[in-house]
Order: sequence, then structure tokens, then C-alpha cells
Amino acid sequence: MLRAGLTRQSSAGIYSWLPLGHRVLQKIEQIVREEQDRAGAIELLMPTIQPAELWRESGRYEAYGKEMLRIKDRHERDMLYGPTNEEMITEIFRAGAKSYKDVPRILYHIQWKFRDEVRPRFGVMRGREFLMKDSYSFDLDKEGAVKSYNKMFVSYLRTFARMGLRAVPMRAETGPIGGDLSHEFIILAETGESQVYCHKDLIQMPVPPQDVDYQSDLTPYVRQRTELYAATEDVHDPKRFAQEVPADMQLSARGIEVGQVFYFGTKYSEAMGAKVQGPGGELIAVEMGSYGIGVSRLVGAIIEASHDDAGIIWPQAVAPFDVGLINLKVGDADTDAACENFYGQLKAAGLDILYDDRDDRAGAKFAAMDLIGLPWQIIVGPKSLKAGEVELKERATGDRHSLTFDAALNRLIAAAEQARKEAA
Amino acid sequence: MLRAGLTRQSSAGIYSWLPLGHRVLQKIEQIVREEQDRAGAIELLMPTIQPAELWRESGRYEAYGKEMLRIKDRHERDMLYGPTNEEMITEIFRAGAKSYKDVPRILYHIQWKFRDEVRPRFGVMRGREFLMKDSYSFDLDKEGAVKSYNKMFVSYLRTFARMGLRAVPMRAETGPIGGDLSHEFIILAETGESQVYCHKDLIQMPVPPQDVDYQSDLTPYVRQRTELYAATEDVHDPKRFAQEVPADMQLSARGIEVGQVFYFGTKYSEAMGAKVQGPGGELIAVEMGSYGIGVSRLVGAIIEASHDDAGIIWPQAVAPFDVGLINLKVGDADTDAACENFYGQLKAAGLDILYDDRDDRAGAKFAAMDLIGLPWQIIVGPKSLKAGEVELKERATGDRHSLTFDAALNRLIAAAEQARKEAA
Repeated sequence: MLRAGLTRQSSAGIYSWLPLGHRVLQKIEQIVREEQDRAGAIELLMPTIQPAELWRESGRYEAYGKEMLRIKDRHERDMLYGPTNEEMITEIFRAGAKSYKDVPRILYHIQWKFRDEVRPRFGVMRGREFLMKDSYSFDLDKEGAVKSYNKMFVSYLRTFARMGLRAVPMRAETGPIGGDLSHEFIILAETGESQVYCHKDLIQMPVPPQDVDYQSDLTPYVRQRTELYAATEDVHDPKRFAQEVPADMQLSARGIEVGQVFYFGTKYSEAMGAKVQGPGGELIAVEMGSYGIGVSRLVGAIIEASHDDAGIIWPQAVAPFDVGLINLKVGDADTDAACENFYGQLKAAGLDILYDDRDDRAGAKFAAMDLIGLPWQIIVGPKSLKAGEVELKERATGDRHSLTFDAALNRLIAAAEQARKEAA
Repeated sequence: MLRAGLTRQSSAGIYSWLPLGHRVLQKIEQIVREEQDRAGAIELLMPTIQPAELWRESGRYEAYGKEMLRIKDRHERDMLYGPTNEEMITEIFRAGAKSYKDVPRILYHIQWKFRDEVRPRFGVMRGREFLMKDSYSFDLDKEGAVKSYNKMFVSYLRTFARMGLRAVPMRAETGPIGGDLSHEFIILAETGESQVYCHKDLIQMPVPPQDVDYQSDLTPYVRQRTELYAATEDVHDPKRFAQEVPADMQLSARGIEVGQVFYFGTKYSEAMGAKVQGPGGELIAVEMGSYGIGVSRLVGAIIEASHDDAGIIWPQAVAPFDVGLINLKVGDADTDAACENFYGQLKAAGLDILYDDRDDRAGAKFAAMDLIGLPWQIIVGPKSLKAGEVELKERATGDRHSLTFDAALNRLIAAAEQARKEAA
């Protein structure tokens, strides 16, 4: 990522997102947002700096340890940079919701968080300052909470699929948030940070359709995936794995966590008094869940899952640009004019173009464009121009074809259209 | 803002953006982004937490005072929550730019910042954690720097106009960033935080057009505005004001700063060694400027500039929803069905709707909708439905008309279309 000019490290585990990387980050963020909205979650935005009192209410202020970045403001008040937002969202909910009519509700935000890791590593995969989408569900009873859980579960399958990823939900530890039902969404990659174990059928399961009705019973989607064995190493049970999964269907691989869903009941609502009046007037502590997606982490995870020796291979939906336009003879009037013309036509067709008009060797320009990993390249040089042609290269396959610019343009428009359909 | 459910205070000067407020914040952010892109600025994203060393390089770490939120991480390293980004962007520029061919360049980001004000006040107008767009320009010489300054100057005029604001550029102090050329963009509002003085002609000057060519000479736009007297109280000169502005054209009013542009030369590039190789091989410290827009502050500023006794009057371009749909008889099958039907049709027409289907008194619902301040309201009750009509209310004028739903829908579509044209 550093070599491709996506990010620049500012200090240990803290990165600037350079223009190319920032475009990817924004595209990922927007896909996450669209699928949250589709599932009925409502967006808001909580601040990064939180008061310590909130965390004293839940009892986590002391418990959280050194990963929490603790701050004193100028009036010596204890503050912290939020590592997660259960307390703050519970406070917001309790201030606004009074009755059983105010649930079910799923609220989410996409905000920078901070966890002061001892040894930040794997670049943006385990940074200290990171962008996360976190959702929180509020329901009257466990049955309702499971419905909310299923909504997020299904929306996560769609979210990751739209980025070109096959994420497998696996049983997981509930960790410092607590609770008794949790799945991590894992993508497989050789460089993955942890070992995971699952039934091979889970890898190729079809994605819930775009028009999935989030008001309907989503249990079948969830059951289909959770009745097959899948576990992260923390909760892996070799005996069960051997019993439940035929030997030829056993998959043991390295994985990267890109999302996690939790149901934790009334842990926070009881501690913080987040109660609504039931139909009979009684006060009921709401059942809660929380649901995270590592937005900045996904940039690194997608690269781990989709690259070759030459560099990144961006799935079209998250690529920083649709196409790279390479001018092989910068300064040559005809080639420059042709490139300018092509640039204008590509842009008019609604495509995002990265134009390489640097005065450099062809080999260096090819290598740089491969490294950056845009889905398509159009290569323009004086020789092919004389034949009325350009070269079109597809990054993922490496296929190169000489064809007229118009034919190349049509091919790109068709590919973008196809990608849009798959993405939706 | 609290009463209308836009924000919720988390601690002094720190706010959560509730769903309604967050929609406004996002719309403002997107307008700012579009106008920055149009002016040729390139977006990236710097982190909120910065290392102290950077600020020691420029000499501002000690100088900045208590407004800087200073933090020690778990390894006792000095960090800070960025109040601004001159140092960090200079570091990014010097790492990537080597030659005069790498300039001119304008980089920007939209990120949360923190200034630990002694007494935060005016809600989000002077919060401690706030969202800001800051751009930075890099040029080879002063002439180039002034061109960049003019680009941002003109883009700011367009940015604020698109939000329904008339922002007047006024000569201003350069403050802690330093430098010798600066304008604040001020909107007039009775509750403004400071006194401002200007020539009345500045208020109604036409906005530069959408297709303004940012590569052309923008001096006329800037000169037209800067040759008339306009100053904030810090730099106000009563004698000059009296001499240069005819008595009947003198305007003295309260104002709110929503943006500021600075040219400060080589202050940071010299201190931090941000130099590029000139055409003759010599090293040249780049000429810099910085350009801020208070994105979260604008939410408050727009309300101050556009409200009445009943509440907010959102300009269409930043309204959280286009239209509020009020069901006057929730539970009545015909009224409920009609509202559902209207909702579907409004949505299909591409409008954003806030549907008030709460079981409450008509008066309370009218008051709540006026307070929230959406541009249009459609009021649906059993009596008017029998006559085949609904009521359409325009928030800004208070005009109410009974008409068929189809006629109301056409009116709203036309208004949205008109707003889109004006906005673009």
C-alpha cells in the first residue's frame, strides 16, 4: 500500500490516506452505508472523544486496559478516544426512547476509532486509528434481538460480496464486549492473521439477493450458514470438526476478520438504565446487539485477497479508478492529442480515469499501473495509433488486445454496466 | 438544534449528530467536496492523532497553548489531536514532491479536529470537536500562490451560495497560522459572534457561474470583492470605512465566520524543508496557503441565517428531507392507506420524505414539522381526502394550498428540479 501510494504512515499504526487510497476508502464506506440503509439501520454520528463518566457507568473504564487512549482536557476532566461506542449509543437511546413503540431500532455510524495497540502491525489492518462502521440494535425481547441480529448478518453477506469478497461467518469469542452469540466474518487469505476451520461448502454459498426483504424471516439465510461447522481458532473444537465435517470437505486456512456481529442482551441497558415502557406499563431493559465492520481494515484485506506478484488487482466496485490511460510517448503531438481525446470520451461515458502522462520509460509505466491495480488499462503509442488502434489490458487476467478506441470504449462501458448490476 | 433533534451534547463542546442533523452535515460536506473538486483540489485524508515531533519541527508545539489537546500514548510518546494540519500536509508534500513539475497542487481533506476551548459555546458553532474542510496549496512562487488563493476564494463563493448563504469575504487577521494575506468569509446573522463592517454592494454580488474556468485568470472575481471595504472588527479601521464607503452604503452588522483563506508563503516549507528542484536545478521552498471551511459550524450558521419564531427554514440543498408527510389521523384505515400510497409515489419521484405517523395532536405535529424546517409539508387528513385533496405547505413562506395529490407531487418535483439547477 505504501509502494502503490495509497497511504503514508504518520506514526506507528496511524496513517494518512493519500488520494488513491482515499478513493478506495470512500467506495468501501459507501457500500457499507448503502447496505446498512437497505437493512433498515439508521445513520447518525457520534464524536471521537468521549467522557470517562459514561464508561464508569458501564464499569468498563477501569476494565478496558491500556488499549484505551485516555486523555485529560484542559480542565483536567477524564476523557478518552472512543475504541467502540456501546456506552454512548446506549446513552443516546435512553435519552430518546420511552416506549415499546420506539423499538425495534438499529442505529449505526461510521467513525474513526482508536485502540492503542502495543505493537501495531500489518499496516492499516491493525492500525491504532481506524475507520469502523458500528451498528447497535435495540429490541424488547430476545426474539426481537435475534431478528435484528439476522438483519445485520444478512446485510454483511451482501456488503462483503459487493466488494468482491467471499466472507464466511464463523463462531467466535465474544471478547471484551461480552455476550453470548457472536459470529466473525472471515475472508481467506494466505497472509491472514489467524487460523480458521470450516466446511468447504461455506465458501461458495450464493449471496442473498438485492431485493431480500429485511422484514421477512431471515432465519433460513442464517441457518444455512450456521449449521455447517465454521470456527476461528479461539473457539475451534478439533473433535467436533472431525465428527461434523467429512474429511474431504474440511478446510483449514488463514483468515482475516472483516466484521463481527454480537448479541449481548441487557448487559449495557441494565447497567445504564436504558429501559422502555412495555405495553402493560412495566419498564423493560432493552435487548441489545452490536455489529462492526472494519472499513479501513477492508482496504488492506481486499488487497490481501486480491493481488499477484505485480501488485494489486482491485475488484471494480472498490477500484480507485475504472481505467488507467497510459501515454507511451509524452511530448509527441499526435499521441498527446489522441490521449486527450480518449480521456474526454472516457470521462463523458461516466468512467473514472487515471491518466499517466509522466515522461518515463514504457516499462516503468506498465509496472506502476499494474502495481496500482486498476481493472483496465488503455495503452496508447504512436505505432498502434498509426494502425488506428490502442491496446486494452485487463488487469485481472493480463489479457491484452489491440483494437480501435471505440471498440475499447464499448468494452469498458459494458464492463462498468455489468459491475454496477452485480454490485447492486 | 437540540430541540429539533439534530444533535445531542455528549460533553462540553462535543456533540453527537442525530439522524436528522447528520443528514444535513453530510449534505453540506458533499457540497464542499464537489466545489473543491471542481476547483481542481485533490482530496486525501489525514488522521486525527498527530505526533508531537511534527509540530516541534515548525515550532508550534510549544506555541499553540492550551487549545491543543495533548495526549500521551501507552509508550509515553507525545501525541496531539490535530487542531489544524499545516505541519502534516507539509510533511506529506515534501515526501512526494521533488520537482517544479509537481506544483501547483492543492490538497484538501474533510476531517474532525479538536480545539480545547476554555468555554465552548454557541452549540456546534464553537464546539471543541468539529468537522472542518482544510485545503493547502503549494506553488513555486508568489504569483502561483496568488492564483491558488484566487481559486479557493472563488470556489468558496460558490460553495456558500449553494447552501443558500450569502458569504462576504472580509479582510481578517491571520491569527496563529501566520501570513500576510487573508480573508474571512462572513455570513450576516443577528446572533453573529462578532461585529463586521462592509460596503452594502458586497451582499448581493452575483455568484461565479457553475462553468467558471478555474484555469483562467480569476482576478476580476476577487478584485470586484476586495476593492470594496469589508473588515472584521479585529482589523476594522473606522477612518478608512468613513472615507471609502458612502454613508448610505455603510453596513455594520453581526457576522458569523464560515470560512477563511490564508496565504502565508514559505513559513512552513522553510521550517520543514519542503523544497522542490526548480528548472535550473536549484532548490526552492514552496509558497503555501491554507483554506478552511467549518463544515459542522455551517449547520449552526445556516440555522442562524435562516429561521423564524417557529423554527428552522432549511434551504432545499441542505434540508435533511425534501418534504414532511403529516398523517392527521393515524389509525384511520383510509388516511393511513392514502399516506402509504403518497409516500411511495414521492419516493419513486426521487424525493426524500420524513413521514410523521405518530399518534399525536394535529397542533403538535404541525409545530414539530415547522421546527424541523423541511422546505415542504404535505398534510393528509380524512376531510380533505374526501374532497380528493391534500394540503401543501411551503415552510419558507407559510403558504398553504389545498390541491390534488398529483398536483402537489408535480409542484414538488418542479421545486426539486429548480433547486438542483440552482445548486449546480
